[in-house]
Amino acid sequence: MKKSIVFLALFISFFTQAQQNVGFRQAPFISPIINEDNSVTFKLKAPYSKEVVVRGDWEANNGVGKMEKGTDGIWTYTSPALPSDLYMYSFLVDSVRTLDPANAFSYRDVGNLFSIMIVGKGNGDKYSVNEVPHGTVEKVWYQSKEYKTERRLTVYTPASYKSGTTKYPVLYLLHGSGGDEEAWITLGRTAQIMDNLIAEGKIEPMIVVMPNGNESKQAAPGETKENYAYRPSMSQFLPNFADGSYERAFPEIVNFIDTRYKTKAQKSQRAVAGLSMGGFHSLSISANHPDLFDYVGLFSPGTPVGRANLPNVPEFQNWEAKFLKQKEQGLKLYWIACGKTDFLYENLHKQMKIFDSVKLPYTYVESTRGHIWSNWRTYMLQFTPLLFKK
Amino acid sequence: MKKSIVFLALFISFFTQAQQNVGFRQAPFISPIINEDNSVTFKLKAPYSKEVVVRGDWEANNGVGKMEKGTDGIWTYTSPALPSDLYMYSFLVDSVRTLDPANAFSYRDVGNLFSIMIVGKGNGDKYSVNEVPHGTVEKVWYQSKEYKTERRLTVYTPASYKSGTTKYPVLYLLHGSGGDEEAWITLGRTAQIMDNLIAEGKIEPMIVVMPNGNESKQAAPGETKENYAYRPSMSQFLPNFADGSYERAFPEIVNFIDTRYKTKAQKSQRAVAGLSMGGFHSLSISANHPDLFDYVGLFSPGTPVGRANLPNVPEFQNWEAKFLKQKEQGLKLYWIACGKTDFLYENLHKQMKIFDSVKLPYTYVESTRGHIWSNWRTYMLQFTPLLFKK
Repeated sequence: MKKSIVFLALFISFFTQAQQNVGFRQAPFISPIINEDNSVTFKLKAPYSKEVVVRGDWEANNGVGKMEKGTDGIWTYTSPALPSDLYMYSFLVDSVRTLDPANAFSYRDVGNLFSIMIVGKGNGDKYSVNEVPHGTVEKVWYQSKEYKTERRLTVYTPASYKSGTTKYPVLYLLHGSGGDEEAWITLGRTAQIMDNLIAEGKIEPMIVVMPNGNESKQAAPGETKENYAYRPSMSQFLPNFADGSYERAFPEIVNFIDTRYKTKAQKSQRAVAGLSMGGFHSLSISANHPDLFDYVGLFSPGTPVGRANLPNVPEFQNWEAKFLKQKEQGLKLYWIACGKTDFLYENLHKQMKIFDSVKLPYTYVESTRGHIWSNWRTYMLQFTPLLFKK
Repeated sequence: MKKSIVFLALFISFFTQAQQNVGFRQAPFISPIINEDNSVTFKLKAPYSKEVVVRGDWEANNGVGKMEKGTDGIWTYTSPALPSDLYMYSFLVDSVRTLDPANAFSYRDVGNLFSIMIVGKGNGDKYSVNEVPHGTVEKVWYQSKEYKTERRLTVYTPASYKSGTTKYPVLYLLHGSGGDEEAWITLGRTAQIMDNLIAEGKIEPMIVVMPNGNESKQAAPGETKENYAYRPSMSQFLPNFADGSYERAFPEIVNFIDTRYKTKAQKSQRAVAGLSMGGFHSLSISANHPDLFDYVGLFSPGTPVGRANLPNVPEFQNWEAKFLKQKEQGLKLYWIACGKTDFLYENLHKQMKIFDSVKLPYTYVESTRGHIWSNWRTYMLQFTPLLFKK
């Protein structure tokens, strides 16, 4: 016992001395604290600072909380009770944006890092790791003929996939502008949603493929030959944005997946869905390849309506004829969801009139709030139970 | 073109208004800047702050740099020229620890997040993503009989693994105290090192398996049912630390890998190596299972010497007899590396005297500096080319 204490003391002294710049250090308090009523208490030690604000993506008070300083130099703020969800937040300390130093967990969204937390007793529980069998998450590269380079995919295979010869249906799940193949698996919590809904018997076990939808990029920031010189950017500022190549090249992703994984390689066992720019991609890819997908999901989608600036390439022409063909080829579900305050709401409703004009049957679900991950995760909970049912 | 600008304006206005708390925002400058001479310039806008310091894991000035404030409220510091490497750093702004808000890239080490950067023209190039074929990285769960639960592994398979029936040798790569199955793939840059050394023909293409070495944990912080209530901790403060169960249970990991992957399932095609606590594990697992590994690597290892407090279980008894048996069973390489200023240096040298006494043949490599990732990545560059050669 005594030796053990000496050993620990050695370790601690080592980590506070030799490696003091980088070592392990625990804050003398916990932050955030999820309270019993789902309010959240944030704490930050900043004895020399004049103003500290917490900013997050919850709706109450527009996600802004003014923290108050205690005599111990620790600032505190308690939010109103929050709906169960995953949230991201940061502090502004005398105008400097910082993560919560007491919170070890963060996600990147486009070019910013955020501290993250889960408020439970509702949807947040579906986004949590629970005691259920866990699927595998792979970062895998495929050779693209279209782009003449390797490109990176995130692939989820369900827990049961590991053994046996059972074949699985596939959901292709596409990110929005500024996103990449890491977006759905981090902020989208896809692996947790799939694990939990499969364990509850609410969805068919399926493979989920999350490609990178930026035409000029091989992979997410930090995962390309630019390494950390990569400046994350909204997709519309990247080269070759919306040039039609992504729509043209998508079948090579499907081919790669059908070759490498145990898939049910047929239209009735394939879905494509995406958020924002990924919603546009889901619309355009399924319309340009009417033989590929029986299921389509548009979450807060961009649409051809409102994109009159699209280049004059075959992929972006004759939309009505393509929708007609898509309908004729057979569609089991064309599912659209949008928040009432989404900035794309108006164009989406014009787009749905075009769907009406060609009698493309679709299901429309309207939610509160706007263009936010909270909605996209909720849409996943609603959309995936509808897939691949007889 | 005009419509395009309107569309972009809509997007930008959206992301600065509706989602202002969480949206995309780029700093008006770049930080860090890797200069031509490998010095690094850091910048932080903090107009209302009194003192800003950058702290990193480079050797010059003990990794501390006092930043200077410009009239524009932007603080700047330029380091001396740094050896090519991956570095982690943070800022202290009026005593508040913050990441670099202009840098989108970070890794977690134990319980802290760090901004990261790569200084090139040397080892740092081996830790970079280059234009070479990329292997696959998987997060996969196996069922443990010993722990009666699922546990998570990180598995790297080389680019050539994707197709064909070729079988591969396997390196089991173990993390240190406070680490988990994410440590080697993040700060260890294992995927990049493997991709690059394989492309250069310097190492045999191999599978690398990175398990979680904490007896009481299923997976890394945030990836267990504790979710974000997980308080990251040094391993010696966790339940069941060093109770012998990890040594006893290790063959079930080997069995899982040999069942699930295309492995050369034989002793001559297996290596085990690890850093610090993972070095102890490599020593103890290979000694307790002398039929499993022809290659052993101890990087800045913990050792039975200096651990007189180990519990009285068979796994930690009769070391000399086990080393003798291990030698008799045949060993192709027993490789040990340590930095001159490592706090484990003295005990390691006592341990090597015990190896000498039983004539266990080993190779010893001594480096500068101490118990740091810079050394462990370098040891990987030195150790892996020695594996699985005829």
